Amino acid sequence: MNYYPESILKLIKSLSTLPGIGRKTAERLALHILHAPLHEAQAIASDILELKQKVTLCSQCFALSDTEHCRICSNVNRDGSIICVVENPTDMAAIEKSGAFNGYYHILGGALSPMDGIGPDEIRLKELFARVCGKGIREVIIATATDVEGEATASYIADTIRTITDNIKKKCLIVSRIASGIPMGGDLQYVDQVTMQRAMEGRHGF
Amino acid sequence: MNYYPESILKLIKSLSTLPGIGRKTAERLALHILHAPLHEAQAIASDILELKQKVTLCSQCFALSDTEHCRICSNVNRDGSIICVVENPTDMAAIEKSGAFNGYYHILGGALSPMDGIGPDEIRLKELFARVCGKGIREVIIATATDVEGEATASYIADTIRTITDNIKKKCLIVSRIASGIPMGGDLQYVDQVTMQRAMEGRHGF
Repeated sequence: MNYYPESILKLIKSLSTLPGIGRKTAERLALHILHAPLHEAQAIASDILELKQKVTLCSQCFALSDTEHCRICSNVNRDGSIICVVENPTDMAAIEKSGAFNGYYHILGGALSPMDGIGPDEIRLKELFARVCGKGIREVIIATATDVEGEATASYIADTIRTITDNIKKKCLIVSRIASGIPMGGDLQYVDQVTMQRAMEGRHGF
Repeated sequence: MNYYPESILKLIKSLSTLPGIGRKTAERLALHILHAPLHEAQAIASDILELKQKVTLCSQCFALSDTEHCRICSNVNRDGSIICVVENPTDMAAIEKSGAFNGYYHILGGALSPMDGIGPDEIRLKELFARVCGKGIREVIIATATDVEGEATASYIADTIRTITDNIKKKCLIVSRIASGIPMGGDLQYVDQVTMQRAMEGRHGF
């Protein structure tokens, strides 16, 4: 690599730290940036710095945000009576892409995982329960992952809310879980046993 | 995409301008940078700006360089009597990676292409001929591409040098062209006709 000047080698090295970018791709990107117009290169650099400075978490749902309330929480046209609980901002992005949900979110920032030392105080459950106890909430959709940690977190949330609502709300609140089953376009022969069991258990009238 | 704050969207957009980086990859990179330590993100940004500021061309061979003379031209352990002529810095990098050459380079910055308006004055031929006329040069290896423009450029260089050396050097200079033929590990059935003709013409004693 001694045939490149030091400043190119430095950029290749720092670009290689990005996920999915190996040394060859980093080399190609660095040479592209070298030949790109100055304003394009400056835009990338300043956008990186701006991102690190500006992005914080929404004070209500804990989604990524530039402002105190994120775009979704500050959108008054959404249904304020439904909260969808997800683990991470990327899960929220996946649901938003589908267009299947029009309420507000609550991002836990992870799932319960006693093995990794993540208990109820390490994720944003307290804040969720406080929101659920607020007025006007009709439904909480639990959309944590369908792995062991996600399922355990879902059960914990449902149990805790049930305790709270028995005391306070007299059943004016529904707690639901997103459906598990065969992915659309999926071939049944490649589906694992647990998914197949869930698909059979969750069958509905046609 | 309205579920991401403005500063993330801006970075996604500017990263998407890079070659081979689509919207999905740009999104993944932006979220990685968001969660990466601040010093890593700052390193990428500052390395981009430093690259654009510092990298110029070597005053002798026109390779990319931080300094007046590039690493190769300032390496006195290389053979100063051989000049290898290439089109671009990336071609030089490919030859250096092979380790098959220990002389100095001359980067033309392109190939002759009358269709695109690139004549002898648009690439660094004048500088090459000046170097060739300098003392101590025994061989010029022409390693331009093997496409139409590269071949034409190679012929033009060989012809011009032959004119010059007839006048000045009395045959104390060799002009050579890198070999064309079957790539190593290549299967003969997939080789195109022109390459096969070259391989047959260029056959050598075994």
